[in-house]
Amino acid sequence: MIALGPGREFDRVRRVAAALGARATGLGDDCALLAAGGRLLAVSTDVSVEDVHFRLAWLSLEEIGWRAAAAALSDLAADGADADAVLVALTVPAGAGDDDVVALMSGAGAAAAEVGARVVGGDLSAGPGWSVAVTALGWTAEPITRAGARAGDGLWVTGRLGAPRAALEAWGRGEVPADEARRAFARPVPRLYPGRWLARHGARAMIDLSDGLGADAAHLAAASGVAAALELDLVPVAPAAAAEAGRLGVPPERFAAESGEEYELLVALPAGFVAEDALAFASVCGVTLTRVGEAREGAGVHARLGGSPVVLSGFDHFAPRRR
Amino acid sequence: MIALGPGREFDRVRRVAAALGARATGLGDDCALLAAGGRLLAVSTDVSVEDVHFRLAWLSLEEIGWRAAAAALSDLAADGADADAVLVALTVPAGAGDDDVVALMSGAGAAAAEVGARVVGGDLSAGPGWSVAVTALGWTAEPITRAGARAGDGLWVTGRLGAPRAALEAWGRGEVPADEARRAFARPVPRLYPGRWLARHGARAMIDLSDGLGADAAHLAAASGVAAALELDLVPVAPAAAAEAGRLGVPPERFAAESGEEYELLVALPAGFVAEDALAFASVCGVTLTRVGEAREGAGVHARLGGSPVVLSGFDHFAPRRR
Repeated sequence: MIALGPGREFDRVRRVAAALGARATGLGDDCALLAAGGRLLAVSTDVSVEDVHFRLAWLSLEEIGWRAAAAALSDLAADGADADAVLVALTVPAGAGDDDVVALMSGAGAAAAEVGARVVGGDLSAGPGWSVAVTALGWTAEPITRAGARAGDGLWVTGRLGAPRAALEAWGRGEVPADEARRAFARPVPRLYPGRWLARHGARAMIDLSDGLGADAAHLAAASGVAAALELDLVPVAPAAAAEAGRLGVPPERFAAESGEEYELLVALPAGFVAEDALAFASVCGVTLTRVGEAREGAGVHARLGGSPVVLSGFDHFAPRRR
Repeated sequence: MIALGPGREFDRVRRVAAALGARATGLGDDCALLAAGGRLLAVSTDVSVEDVHFRLAWLSLEEIGWRAAAAALSDLAADGADADAVLVALTVPAGAGDDDVVALMSGAGAAAAEVGARVVGGDLSAGPGWSVAVTALGWTAEPITRAGARAGDGLWVTGRLGAPRAALEAWGRGEVPADEARRAFARPVPRLYPGRWLARHGARAMIDLSDGLGADAAHLAAASGVAAALELDLVPVAPAAAAEAGRLGVPPERFAAESGEEYELLVALPAGFVAEDALAFASVCGVTLTRVGEAREGAGVHARLGGSPVVLSGFDHFAPRRR
């Protein structure tokens, strides 16, 4: 399997891969890749669980469906693939009605349509709560994995980070998040077109930021056999995240780098990819691209903020939650 | 979408398909089919939920993983496809350890290996109980859907029916099922090779019996625009099912026809497919093939037992359970 960064969830994945041996291949990347007549099928599955990934008090069922589909589609973006289709396996609690199921599935369908994909199948079951397992399928001629970064590559991120965490912090205090934060959490737009642009313009490795910049930089570094040197002062911070960080007395860039459930991309690009190229990206893709560090010889994540080393926390669905 | 038979679960699927409109295509068949360079990708997703599809008191975690993967792979069999890969999105309850996750995933991997497929990806999340969403992917040049049966076709089933229900009835009484019944429920072998044989030998429509013969014959009939005339006296009954039916005072053939969670196939074959062809199938595939009725002009399921009409019950995960 592809090497992963540290974390209890990833220890589990490592143990599963070791136990399966030859019965499993390619575990640990954003997508599985299957040969399909000259192209590659990229496929990823992602489960969103009530009271783990979302609460009904926070989101409408349509938003829950959107978010769940966006999470799986984001893995295709990180491979530089096109999105073709999604399947939704839905667990429905007792007491939910047909309208509820329709609302959730409509949200998943809208997220798919946003990036040119369709819902082609699914499954429905009773269960103890809402649970949405989405499988996304797409196509690519030359996939970008996590494993291709080389020492000297620049590390860049799309968009501005931290807004989803700002929403979670607000909900955790029993408040209503700022609109920008809520929207970033509830209706993230997976970066399919930006991912394909980056794949065509030299991307050597990509990953989405579902585990947060710190943890996902660790995965990319481990898979590529390099160190990730992050200059946190450069991290683009969403305005809502800056406001929330100020309230908590945390440096905004650190707050943003430790936000999880981001669907922006972290991408390694050759040193020849410069700020002017990032402007071309932004004008075509409608989202910023910001250099936040570089790949170096070595291993692990080496983050600095204001000239001092910082150890970043990841985002772990098996750990006790702040909220 | 493809027409489905009656049932509350299927009413939900119909409503979802209507609400999604153009954002969804092909809902209602065993597999979604995506064009892929001269071949078709067949893909199906299937979720198995603790206390809905299984109980921890009945099955080991390895068996739970096997069963969940077999359910998704069975949909490929019903399309006449080869199995290539599975992805497993797993929800893990608090208190479960890494060994538990490894055991479940090993079972899923073993079921995949049994039919020549590999585990290529997945996802892990905390959750209120075990839930296993498996997506199975395979390839076919000429898929067999549910929709191709014509009046005059024979309706045939693979294997012997009723053993999984016999296991559920025994567990429901607090007893240990007979070995044959337990094995049929815990480690069903999806009929990939038999499905491909049937596809190559003229199959016009196929479906697996996950909802039971009565309900799945209704789906096949609705999708094909025909009636399914079933002679229940011909239904091949597993010995464990006959014993259980005797205990309950139910005709064994009816007990078997109303068993759900079967992973045998129901197939429509042209009238020219005869008993001798079924013997050839059995000698190559190692499983019996039995004619149980025929497709006719009309609609719905028309079942007879001992010369009298019988209305068969289906198997509904949203209905209150016997057990």
